[in-house]
Parts: sequence; structure tokens; C-alpha cells
Amino acid sequence: MDMESLGDKILAGDRRALARAITLVESARADHRAQAAQLLDHLRRIGRQAVRIGLSGTPGVGKSTFIEAFGMMLIDQGLRVAVLAVDPSSARSGGSILGDKTRMERLSRERNAFIRPSPSQTHLGGVARRTREAVSLCEAAGFDVVLIETVGVGQSETVVAEMSDLFVLLLAPAGGDELQGVKRGIMEMADLILVNKADGDLKPAAMRTCSDYTGALRLLRKRPQDPDGFPRAMMVSAHEGSGLAEAWTQMQALVDWRRENGHWDRRRAEQALYWFDQEVRQALLARLETPRARAAMAALSDRVAAGEIAPAGAAAEMLEKHLGG
Amino acid sequence: MDMESLGDKILAGDRRALARAITLVESARADHRAQAAQLLDHLRRIGRQAVRIGLSGTPGVGKSTFIEAFGMMLIDQGLRVAVLAVDPSSARSGGSILGDKTRMERLSRERNAFIRPSPSQTHLGGVARRTREAVSLCEAAGFDVVLIETVGVGQSETVVAEMSDLFVLLLAPAGGDELQGVKRGIMEMADLILVNKADGDLKPAAMRTCSDYTGALRLLRKRPQDPDGFPRAMMVSAHEGSGLAEAWTQMQALVDWRRENGHWDRRRAEQALYWFDQEVRQALLARLETPRARAAMAALSDRVAAGEIAPAGAAAEMLEKHLGG
Repeated sequence: MDMESLGDKILAGDRRALARAITLVESARADHRAQAAQLLDHLRRIGRQAVRIGLSGTPGVGKSTFIEAFGMMLIDQGLRVAVLAVDPSSARSGGSILGDKTRMERLSRERNAFIRPSPSQTHLGGVARRTREAVSLCEAAGFDVVLIETVGVGQSETVVAEMSDLFVLLLAPAGGDELQGVKRGIMEMADLILVNKADGDLKPAAMRTCSDYTGALRLLRKRPQDPDGFPRAMMVSAHEGSGLAEAWTQMQALVDWRRENGHWDRRRAEQALYWFDQEVRQALLARLETPRARAAMAALSDRVAAGEIAPAGAAAEMLEKHLGG
Repeated sequence: MDMESLGDKILAGDRRALARAITLVESARADHRAQAAQLLDHLRRIGRQAVRIGLSGTPGVGKSTFIEAFGMMLIDQGLRVAVLAVDPSSARSGGSILGDKTRMERLSRERNAFIRPSPSQTHLGGVARRTREAVSLCEAAGFDVVLIETVGVGQSETVVAEMSDLFVLLLAPAGGDELQGVKRGIMEMADLILVNKADGDLKPAAMRTCSDYTGALRLLRKRPQDPDGFPRAMMVSAHEGSGLAEAWTQMQALVDWRRENGHWDRRRAEQALYWFDQEVRQALLARLETPRARAAMAALSDRVAAGEIAPAGAAAEMLEKHLGG
């Protein structure tokens, strides 16, 4: 495959070329990795940037409905929208969020939308790298907004925040005590909290939840990357379509402010450093995954389990004899 | 330092030799690491085993008071007790739990007790290895029981469970909703839940909490390593000394059953495999910590931050040129 011509097709907005390139970055084969690096480097020089929006929310808050409605609203404004996902659970199950495009039926039929499920991988690090590279490919393909969805569990929020310009937390209306359900660390990552389902019977609860979070956000320490009034909580109804345009206006205001004040570029540079560090670590650990290394680990494991050699001694032998120590 | 004579002194129960050996395993210097490996291998062949008890509980449950009272009770029964700690927070603060021996004033004066604070390290992996090796040294020194304390946060429970034969969760009496305060994963690790402060005004609350957890434990899936009636919840009062002997009786019953049924040896073998794997991974990542590797990472980081090279390309260069790729 010629990477330069694939790159040119992506730059021209060819969806099939984009899909093919994402398949390439998802591959673990060494020759594919080398081609992917070449392609990404080529596209990086063009320097196209989308607004990358990380979106987190536990199952049941209406994430798919929100993405569909929010994405359609952006498309109606003339924008192109890509939707990607980081789903650590897919590592085990093989399934994935966004796997079922029928959950976003209208959006998936749009020419100006591109939806891609989470790559299946054995560990979050692998999912993270592949998604991050897919984000870059979508930027090069000229998408204006890239939504990166994750489920509200474990470390995946951190991973998504490290590849996003904005982090949005989607919540459902809830009883008075629900505040405790969101981990403090995740709330501290949020630039915008959107209380979804602010319609019908749930509207009063949504107002109360929004007000609770507004209060909670005020208690957080002011961050240098925030203009006055951020982070903030707002109500939306993906079902009725209300609040979505206003949410996008707020996101744009935040983006503009950060661009003017240098935070945007600084954050992107910090993220690049983060991923450099992560890639080095993961590549080092990948040396344990070659057939030869696996065989050596298995043989030493047998001796450790039999009590013939201590873990520390076995590790030293592994590193010296099999990992070029 | 002659490792064989140091080892012999440890086997003879020499406390100063034990303290010196623990300082040795806590050292990051390569020559110290080699000596430590030699010492541990020598002692491992003797095959002395203590009952290793992992103990977790959030601040405020009375962990120090419990360890002091439980330890004194064991000593009164003629046993020798070592107390170690795994404290991930000490990585950042430099401080550590158990750092202040005055919190266990009586125990720290006992000839048959040995108390050692958590090693200060830059990461949990380092704390874990050093504590695990200290546990082995205490076993070789003839201690009958090794208590490994941790605070109830993050991954430290998993680490402690991987070096313990029994895992004990210490709780304080609480209101009806407190059950949610303990992460399910931690409850699933517990062999014994001890509700402390079952004295005075708090006794009714302790009874209710104990009963709540007894019910919750019944809902967990039966584990092959448990005889009938385990895991179980009990009430203790470290302050009054009540329930401590009964808790130890229950622990011994569990130990005996697991020894007879092969679970004890199997678990120790599994743990050795876990630590073998962890040591290999940590040693691989330690290759990033040499002065040369740090300098190369810093130089590449500058180029990544300046946008001259992509994270993936920089990582590839680091691995090929500086990490013997």
C-alpha cells in the first residue's frame, strides 16, 4: 500500500481511505505499524485540527441519544463530525460500545458523519493508542469535531481526557444524593457537565441535579485553563433537542478563549509528551509478547511455581538472557 | 557485606541483622540488589513460613490501635509478630503510615515484635517489591505472624493481597448506608471483615454494621479457597481487647483448612508467579531510569513538544537507538 496516496485520499476526505487507514493503525503487525507511523507523520505535517471532545457518562445517561442529537445539530450547522470510542470493557468481551451503529441511526447515514467503534484490544493501552491515532486520521480527513466516547469506569476517562481538547461529562437527573456517584477525579476533569433528559417528568430532577453540580463545581479549585464561568453545568435534552446548540456555543467559547490564551497549544504539546512516554513504555513491555519471550517466561514460570527459583532470580535470568539485559 | 553470615544471623533471630537486611532490599543500587537477591535465595531454601495477614481499612477505623492490641494478644500467646506497611501515599509525601512508632507504643517495645514503616518509593511497584522482600526476611527471622498494613485506597489492596495468606478488612461502625463506602472489589478480597469499636455507645451500630456485612458476604459467589462460613464478618474492640482472640482462632481455622486442602501452597505458588511477572515488567521499565535513557527521553521530548516529531516516531527512535530495540 502506498502511504502517500492513501494520505492524499484522506486529505481529500475519502471516507473509504479513512476507514482503511484506521484499520491499518489498529493492526498490531510490525509492517502495518511502520506504515501507520509513516502515514501519520505525513498527515501531521499538514496540521489540520478538529475540536476533540471527550465524552464520558455511565450507562443509562443516554449517551448514544445525545451523540446522535448533538452530532445532527452540528451537521445542520454545516460541520463534519466523527465519533470514536474508547471502551476498556471491549478488551475482555470482544464487544464494544458504538459497535451497534443502529443506536445512532440517523447520524450513521449522514455523509458528513463518520462513526467508528472502539478497537478490540487486550489492554487499555492498546485501545488508547489506536483511538488516538484514529483521532489524528479524522482530523486530517477534515472533520471539524471529533467526539470520543467512553463509559464511566476506571482509567478510561483519563485516557480520553489525554486525547481531548474538551472533556464533557454527561449525567442523568437524579435524587439529591447522586453527587457522590461521580468520582471526584472525574468531576475535576470536566470542562462541561451536561445533565441530560431535562424534559417531561424528569425536568424538575434535572434542574435540581444541575444546580447541585453547579454548586459542587464552584467548590473546585480554579484552573488556569478556564475562563470565568467554567467549568459549568447545563441542562440538555437529547430527546427534545433542547440545550444542544447552547452547549456547543459554550464549547466554542471555551475553545476560542483557550486558543487566544495559549492553553490550547500548550495542552496539545503536553498531550504529545504524555503519548510519547506511554508509547515508549508500552513498546518496552511489548518485548514480553514475542513468541520467544513468551516461551522463556513460561519455562521460568514453571520453575518459579515448583519453588526451584525465587521470583527475583527468575526475573533477573529473564532480563539477562532473553531481554538483552 | 557477607550475605551468608547476614543470613545466618537473620535465621538466628538477630533483630539488627533483620533491620539491616530490610534496608538492603529497600536500596535501589545495583550492587545492593544483587546482594539482596543472593540473601533472599539463601533464606528461601530454609523454607520458613509465617502466617501473612494483609490488613486494610480506611483512616479512622482504628488500624493502629487494632494492630497494637491484636499484636499484643498474639505475643501473650507466645507468638512473634512483625508489622510491615504498604503505603502508596508515601511515594509522594515521603511520609508513611507506621512511620510513627508511638502509635503502637506497647508493641514497639516488645522483644517479640518487629515494626517497620513503609518504604518510600516513587511508585507503588517499588513499594510492593520491597515490602514483599521484607515479608520474606521476617519469615526467615522466625516471626510467626506478619501483618501487612495498607490504607484503603486504590491499588494497594491488590498488592497487599498478592503477598498475604489472609486478607482482613477492618471497618468502623456506621450508618445503614455505609455498605456502599467499601468498594465491591475490596470486599471480594476479604477473608475476614472485622467491625472495630464494638464497645460503648458504638456497640449497637457495630452490631448493625456486622450484620449488614454478614448479609452482603452471603451474596458473594462461593470461592474454592473458603471452607463453610467464610468469608465472615465479626465484631472486635481493639480498645477493650474483645473479640481479638476469637478473630485469631478464626484465622487459624482458615489457615488450617487451606493448608489441608492444598489451597495454601497453590496460592503461594500463584503469588510467586505474579511477582515474577511484576518484577520482569518493572525491570524492563527501569531501563528508562538510567541517566542516559533519561537524557535521551528529555531530548526527544523537546522535539515532540516543539512539534518536530510525532509521539510515535519519537518512541520508535527512543527504542531503536537508546533501548537496544
